[in-house]
Amino acid sequence: MSYADTDPFADFRALIAGMPQGSVEAVETVRARDSELTKPAGSLGKLEELVRFLARWQERAEPRLDNPMVAIFAANHGVVRQGVSAYPAEVTKQMVANFTHGGAAISQICALHDINLRVFELALDLPTGDITQEAAMDARTASATLAYGMEAVAGRPDLLAIGEMGIGNTTIAAAVCAALFGGGGSEWAGRGTGVDDAGLNRKIAAIDKALALHHDARDPFDILARLGGREIAAMAGAIVAARHNKCPVIVDGFVATAATAVLHAANPAALDHCLFGHRSAESAHGKALAIMGKSALLDLGMRLGEGTGAALAAVIAKTALHLHRNMATFAEAAVAGKLK
Amino acid sequence: MSYADTDPFADFRALIAGMPQGSVEAVETVRARDSELTKPAGSLGKLEELVRFLARWQERAEPRLDNPMVAIFAANHGVVRQGVSAYPAEVTKQMVANFTHGGAAISQICALHDINLRVFELALDLPTGDITQEAAMDARTASATLAYGMEAVAGRPDLLAIGEMGIGNTTIAAAVCAALFGGGGSEWAGRGTGVDDAGLNRKIAAIDKALALHHDARDPFDILARLGGREIAAMAGAIVAARHNKCPVIVDGFVATAATAVLHAANPAALDHCLFGHRSAESAHGKALAIMGKSALLDLGMRLGEGTGAALAAVIAKTALHLHRNMATFAEAAVAGKLK
Repeated sequence: MSYADTDPFADFRALIAGMPQGSVEAVETVRARDSELTKPAGSLGKLEELVRFLARWQERAEPRLDNPMVAIFAANHGVVRQGVSAYPAEVTKQMVANFTHGGAAISQICALHDINLRVFELALDLPTGDITQEAAMDARTASATLAYGMEAVAGRPDLLAIGEMGIGNTTIAAAVCAALFGGGGSEWAGRGTGVDDAGLNRKIAAIDKALALHHDARDPFDILARLGGREIAAMAGAIVAARHNKCPVIVDGFVATAATAVLHAANPAALDHCLFGHRSAESAHGKALAIMGKSALLDLGMRLGEGTGAALAAVIAKTALHLHRNMATFAEAAVAGKLK
Repeated sequence: MSYADTDPFADFRALIAGMPQGSVEAVETVRARDSELTKPAGSLGKLEELVRFLARWQERAEPRLDNPMVAIFAANHGVVRQGVSAYPAEVTKQMVANFTHGGAAISQICALHDINLRVFELALDLPTGDITQEAAMDARTASATLAYGMEAVAGRPDLLAIGEMGIGNTTIAAAVCAALFGGGGSEWAGRGTGVDDAGLNRKIAAIDKALALHHDARDPFDILARLGGREIAAMAGAIVAARHNKCPVIVDGFVATAATAVLHAANPAALDHCLFGHRSAESAHGKALAIMGKSALLDLGMRLGEGTGAALAAVIAKTALHLHRNMATFAEAAVAGKLK
């Protein structure tokens, strides 16, 4: 058998096919404690769900958030030469420096709320191929990038908030979603960082041209390689690695959601340990979530990426867990229970 | 002129008629700095609006959150004898102790996020009159309670998150909203802390009976006195005092919103310095907000009261301000601006 006959994604497909299911027992322990806390049953709504979510996927009856982490994956894209972004490509590298130096929004969310921040640079000087002209990546590069993304859990985070930075990547995310879910450029393109009408038209045209060129791509990982980007591949890898390492995931906006869409196409249950942090103002995000039957925790009109929406959701999760661990029970506080 | 001819609410009406309008200049200064920060314009959505909101109502070009405060107003209600709550009336006092001892949800939100918590007890041993039989309060008591609520700003908070505790008070809030906005008990009653079907029916019947008894109440403060509660009056006072003391307000759930509804009926612009923190799972809350043309920042399925929804919104506001103050500008970070 020649190398060309093998599937470069075989190992990754196996990981997706055999995902751990989390601990139902841990969830029941959380539920039992929750019913004793001094509040009407269910009255903390999604905060209660968040604690059960952490318990299930950490497989811990007493979930922890000692090491929550925001992972930002940064990459560059050949498609920017089609004039699809309001910002020049060098901004990707400049923003990576800004993340590290503490000047970016995500840096300051993490600083204020004591969340670790790691930035994964993905060959910023080697943009992927222009998807209107060629494949973004060959299959081996895509596979290697999935594997690289799996390193995000090396620091053993107990919660992974996944975000990205990459000038041009809402075009890439739109192309990936269109290829996976159907529809054309006009249905999936938005204004991203803020393109004007002419830029939006160039973006739609670029997506449609790429979809036509790669129309025979059917397998989700083939779509990822040909229409995707390094950060999208790495995020997909990180999400799968997190599942196998008992680490729940909070997904950021539209571009991060495109990474989940690839996994969803391979196995919808692959996202069971993922929570969507924030519904982006980029309207394609809501559309992708709806198709996958998902909804987001927050809706604050943001459209920045960088993991900012996921990080704010992580702040809510930290708060939810703090309440679960520190509230008094009815017995401890001598508060009367419900009337019979 | 006999005392009976005077309007006990005259002073309060004057305060509502002459509300300060905040500083447009402060908003413009915030907007100018915001445009320099390393993110696409507008990409932080409601976080950017929050900073402008703080600037306008603090009348500070550099808003501060050095002294954010959650104020909880606690009261008891004669209507509980109609069997409208799932919990006994003594829980109000027990929860007040729990707030102070740190066992309640709001205590722990405030502890985690460094927000001050003050609890205002409103004659817990003197429940208001049963609104199905008599007026909740006479006008002088209601007026005095409005004035007492104004003391909430004595500690000079720079943000006031307003919440409440009071067994039976979703019934009271429903009656106040029905009287102000129209509709009957079945349109405004929800399950509150979790009444069963029989309890919900008793609640609806109690509201309808109260509405019939007080059908001639038209003036918002007359409605407040006859159908309201001490915590609702005190919250209304606190909100107006905050406006006159350059303190923006975040309103909690349905019961706190009933206090804003009284003010709204007197002068819709009286709420311009108020932000609604969280849309309660109690469905009447969304209805009241819609009638007033308001929307809430968060929607986390909560229905606890205690100021918990407002406090979570305050956490978002703190985060928004932290970003505004600490993010780098394009110039500082040497990040390229938008393409021309």
